Amino acid sequence: MLLCDIGNTSYHFFDLKKDFKEDVNIFNPTTIKKKIFYICVNSKIQKILKTLPNWIDLAKYIDISKYYKTIGIDRIMACEAISNGVIVDAGSAITVDIVKNNVYGGGFIYPGINTMNQTYKNISDVLDYSFNFECNLDIMPKNSRDSISYGYLKPFYSEVLSHNMNIFLTGGDAKIFVKIFPNAKIDEKLIFKGMNKIIKKA
Amino acid sequence: MLLCDIGNTSYHFFDLKKDFKEDVNIFNPTTIKKKIFYICVNSKIQKILKTLPNWIDLAKYIDISKYYKTIGIDRIMACEAISNGVIVDAGSAITVDIVKNNVYGGGFIYPGINTMNQTYKNISDVLDYSFNFECNLDIMPKNSRDSISYGYLKPFYSEVLSHNMNIFLTGGDAKIFVKIFPNAKIDEKLIFKGMNKIIKKA
Repeated sequence: MLLCDIGNTSYHFFDLKKDFKEDVNIFNPTTIKKKIFYICVNSKIQKILKTLPNWIDLAKYIDISKYYKTIGIDRIMACEAISNGVIVDAGSAITVDIVKNNVYGGGFIYPGINTMNQTYKNISDVLDYSFNFECNLDIMPKNSRDSISYGYLKPFYSEVLSHNMNIFLTGGDAKIFVKIFPNAKIDEKLIFKGMNKIIKKA
Repeated sequence: MLLCDIGNTSYHFFDLKKDFKEDVNIFNPTTIKKKIFYICVNSKIQKILKTLPNWIDLAKYIDISKYYKTIGIDRIMACEAISNGVIVDAGSAITVDIVKNNVYGGGFIYPGINTMNQTYKNISDVLDYSFNFECNLDIMPKNSRDSISYGYLKPFYSEVLSHNMNIFLTGGDAKIFVKIFPNAKIDEKLIFKGMNKIIKKA
C-alpha cells in the first residue's frame, strides 16, 4: 500500500516501510501507476490528482462535522491518529491541535522556523539571526539573537505547555522543536498513521 | 525644542505640543535648520544625519552598559521613560521590554501586525486573513481566521501578562493592541518622554 501526504512544498510518500519526499514543482504524479491513497492541502496539485483515477483522496472518508470546513486535511489525519494530546506539526507553518478523548478540541497556526526567520529579516537586516534553540526561556534576553529567539519560541512554548497534555511532535522540524519540548514524543509518521486508520475504517 | 524618533519607515517628530510623521524614503532632513534632538535605528538615515551638525544624536548620552550593545535606541528611550513596567512598542516589529526599579530587565522582539499578516499569507493564500482582535483567547479556535489570530495573539498575550507588571503600550499599533490589553496604559509619547529625560540629564 502506498500513502502520500502532499503539502505546499513536497509530496511525502510512505509505503508502510520507508518514506521519501518529492518536490511539488518537479514530481509528475502520473508516473505512479498503482493505487495510492493521498491527502493534499495544495490546491494546484489537488486539481491534477482529481483527474487521476488511481490517486484516491482520503478526505472524502472524513466526517468533517467533527472538525471545521477549512481545516487542513493533514491536521485532521494527525488528530485521527491519537486519542489524547496536543499535536505540534512543524513545517513551513506549525499547526497545533488538541484531541481530548477522541474529540477534536480546536487548534491554531503559528509560523514555522524558516518562515519566521524570513519575517524577522524582512523587518530589518539587524534581525537576521538564526533562532537559538538553546536560549534560556526562563529569563528575558539581553542580546539580539536571543531577543528574537525568545520572541519566537517562548510564547509558543508556554502556549503549548499550558494545555497540560502529552505533546506529539511531527513534521519536518520536529527534531528541532524537541529541543524545547524534551518530553514530547516525536512521531514523524503521525499523519500516515491517521491515514491508515481511515483506510481501515472505510 | 524639536525631537525626532527615526524608525524603519518614518521620521516621527514632536515639538512638545504636537507630533507628525514623514516617510523615510521622501523626507529630506537638511530642510530642518534648527537644532533637533534625535534617535535613529535606521542605519541608512543615520549615515546622513551624522553629517548634519544641527541634528544631535541622543544615543551618545546613554549609558549602554545598563542595556546591551545591539539594542535599538528607541527601546532604550522608552525604558528611560518609566520606572516599573512592561513596555510593548507595537510597530513593524513589536518590542517588549521590562523595567524594574529603573533597572532594565531584558526584552524580546515579536513581529508586528502587518509583518505577521504577510508571514501567514506567504505560507499559503488560504491563510490570508486579517487578525481578529475580538477572537476569544480562552478557547482553542475552530475556524481558519481565528486559528491564525489565536496563533499570533494568544502566545504573545500570555507572555506579556506573565510578568505581572503594568503594561505601557506605545507605537503605531498601540490602539489596536489595547483591545487585548484593556488594562494597559496607552502612551504614544513614551519614547519622546524618555528622550526629554535624557536631554534634561545631559
